[in-house]
Amino acid sequence: MPMTPFAPPTRVLMGPGPSDVHERVRLALARDTIGHLDPEFITLMDQIMGGLREVFCTDYQLTMPISAPGSAGQEAAIVNLLEPGDTFIACVNGVFGGRMAVMAERAGAKVVKVEQQWGRAIDVEALRDALKQNPTTKLVGFVHAETSTGVLSDAQAIAAVAQEFGALTLADTVTSLGGVPVKIQEWGIDAAYSGTQKCLSCPPGLSPVTFGPRAREAMDARKIPVQSWFLDLSLLTGYWSGAKRAYHHTAPVNALYGLHESLVMLLEEGLEAAWKRHSDTHLKLVEGLESLGLHMAVPAGERTPQLNAVMVPDGVDEAGVRAQLLQRHNLEIGAGLGPMAGKIWRIGLMGQSCTQRHVDLCIGALGEALNA
Amino acid sequence: MPMTPFAPPTRVLMGPGPSDVHERVRLALARDTIGHLDPEFITLMDQIMGGLREVFCTDYQLTMPISAPGSAGQEAAIVNLLEPGDTFIACVNGVFGGRMAVMAERAGAKVVKVEQQWGRAIDVEALRDALKQNPTTKLVGFVHAETSTGVLSDAQAIAAVAQEFGALTLADTVTSLGGVPVKIQEWGIDAAYSGTQKCLSCPPGLSPVTFGPRAREAMDARKIPVQSWFLDLSLLTGYWSGAKRAYHHTAPVNALYGLHESLVMLLEEGLEAAWKRHSDTHLKLVEGLESLGLHMAVPAGERTPQLNAVMVPDGVDEAGVRAQLLQRHNLEIGAGLGPMAGKIWRIGLMGQSCTQRHVDLCIGALGEALNA
Repeated sequence: MPMTPFAPPTRVLMGPGPSDVHERVRLALARDTIGHLDPEFITLMDQIMGGLREVFCTDYQLTMPISAPGSAGQEAAIVNLLEPGDTFIACVNGVFGGRMAVMAERAGAKVVKVEQQWGRAIDVEALRDALKQNPTTKLVGFVHAETSTGVLSDAQAIAAVAQEFGALTLADTVTSLGGVPVKIQEWGIDAAYSGTQKCLSCPPGLSPVTFGPRAREAMDARKIPVQSWFLDLSLLTGYWSGAKRAYHHTAPVNALYGLHESLVMLLEEGLEAAWKRHSDTHLKLVEGLESLGLHMAVPAGERTPQLNAVMVPDGVDEAGVRAQLLQRHNLEIGAGLGPMAGKIWRIGLMGQSCTQRHVDLCIGALGEALNA
Repeated sequence: MPMTPFAPPTRVLMGPGPSDVHERVRLALARDTIGHLDPEFITLMDQIMGGLREVFCTDYQLTMPISAPGSAGQEAAIVNLLEPGDTFIACVNGVFGGRMAVMAERAGAKVVKVEQQWGRAIDVEALRDALKQNPTTKLVGFVHAETSTGVLSDAQAIAAVAQEFGALTLADTVTSLGGVPVKIQEWGIDAAYSGTQKCLSCPPGLSPVTFGPRAREAMDARKIPVQSWFLDLSLLTGYWSGAKRAYHHTAPVNALYGLHESLVMLLEEGLEAAWKRHSDTHLKLVEGLESLGLHMAVPAGERTPQLNAVMVPDGVDEAGVRAQLLQRHNLEIGAGLGPMAGKIWRIGLMGQSCTQRHVDLCIGALGEALNA
């Protein structure tokens, strides 16, 4: 059968990402492609770096998008900051903290895990104990907003403890960036990575990263080259901010148009306004879910507003409800992962998907499905 | 200064890639984003895999796009096929063969280089000698169409020699795919990677790869995990073709819409027709360049039609001419890299940039610049 053009359905995206993409961003993707060494493209790169610094609340010079999805940004941070034999503490309270540990093992690091029950925030005192027992720890990694469970951990407290012991801090801000305060520099976080398809409401495919001076010193002091050529920040820096803009790889030009436009939109709204919108809309969603008799999976106070984990009631067909929402309402919500599979739904309120209209649609559709 | 929407100029792209992107592909990028686990998205993935198999002339099951530019596909092939201590022969006649060697070194392989003068095709007898001296070679890597010099090497002959010695073959088809015959299976090539921004005329950002049964056996027999989690094909395969479509990373949904549409367009034209168009248009360009008194950098018989390296005449300001073409005609052509910097221009005739209209514009603009 010959290939014919693909016509995607128009979904409402309330899963764990991607979130709804505004027409402005979609149309930006369709702008004329220019070369990755074009002088105009360099202007675009500079503006994206500036916009990302605003969004990460930092003036770290080394702030840019990695040309691949969030997990590549995660790997970039880990393989550049760690060398074989280094000690890495991974705070693990869900899928993405666990992934940090796996990546660090593959980078040859000695990995110590500070494990926390899924659905709860990282225990800062447990981290302190691990640091006491591993005083030469080079790097502490944690997930700010755990996409697999909807938990927000205290990034500032984690960074403070790490700093007390002279360790660097790496924050996964894939789901948090743009949805809750992420104050990289004020909180003393040395490195962070994110994704475009959550609260930035861009299609997936890019991973904004930021590295502060202590992280850069650690990278400059490396004894062996980074195992990945593609993700080697010493080479990427030459392209993104070197005086010569030395060719490294071919940057994903049109995807970067989309990220640029999404940053324009977020900064037009203002970061604080966006954080408030996420927080307010989350409270409305929780109210609606509870009015249906549903229970949140995460204790109040540890919830991240942009990703809401809700318990599947006993006897309800978890996948059946999701399928019905998709078929009848074109509404996507997420399933649980790992030990949470079958037990929770994950309802995203990220970026453009974070409006009262989304809450109303979701509560209406879920109510219909549960009462069927 | 606040960020404002970015308005790229409308260029004519005749450099070493990206090439001109057809409106159909650009508008495909702007289609509604759907989730990377949506049932409709699985249809898209299956169609892309099928289209790529047609374009690579293979029925290798493991054929898919890596979610990052060509150099990530290159790294994926190398780090999955090689383990520390394996012997790798890199055929090096330009930048991209050299990059293979660097990546293989970072993967812990013992790297043997078969070096050839830049601007000339790989010498198959030199490869045979290297294989005789290194009879336990696991993998031979070469660049089919060297983007840095415009040279086409004999992929079929290289693969045959490697096979004689029981080695696997890895082909860089970044620039060749879609522009000249690339018959992966018929030629006995075990693995290949490409890019979207050359003869497929998609924006940069994805890297189609294909792996045959012997390559898969080698990957299945690995003793240690692949150093990159993001590029680990054993995990990627579960997402792209496993029965469960297990989540690995978030696929770049809209970029894949673009690749899908570009495959639809290429298969509408037909592969053989596209190859003929590249060959015919190349001859017209060479004729035009020679009529301006310019000399090709590569001997006839070793030229790849889609990337034309032409000598910069003595006394001509190489960068000045390129700047004039860009400013007066919005026409991008490429500079030389490495030892060819300042000595050649690289003129691309790739995909949508391969028409008589492009030849006429380029010859006219170059003629004007040289006679100024």
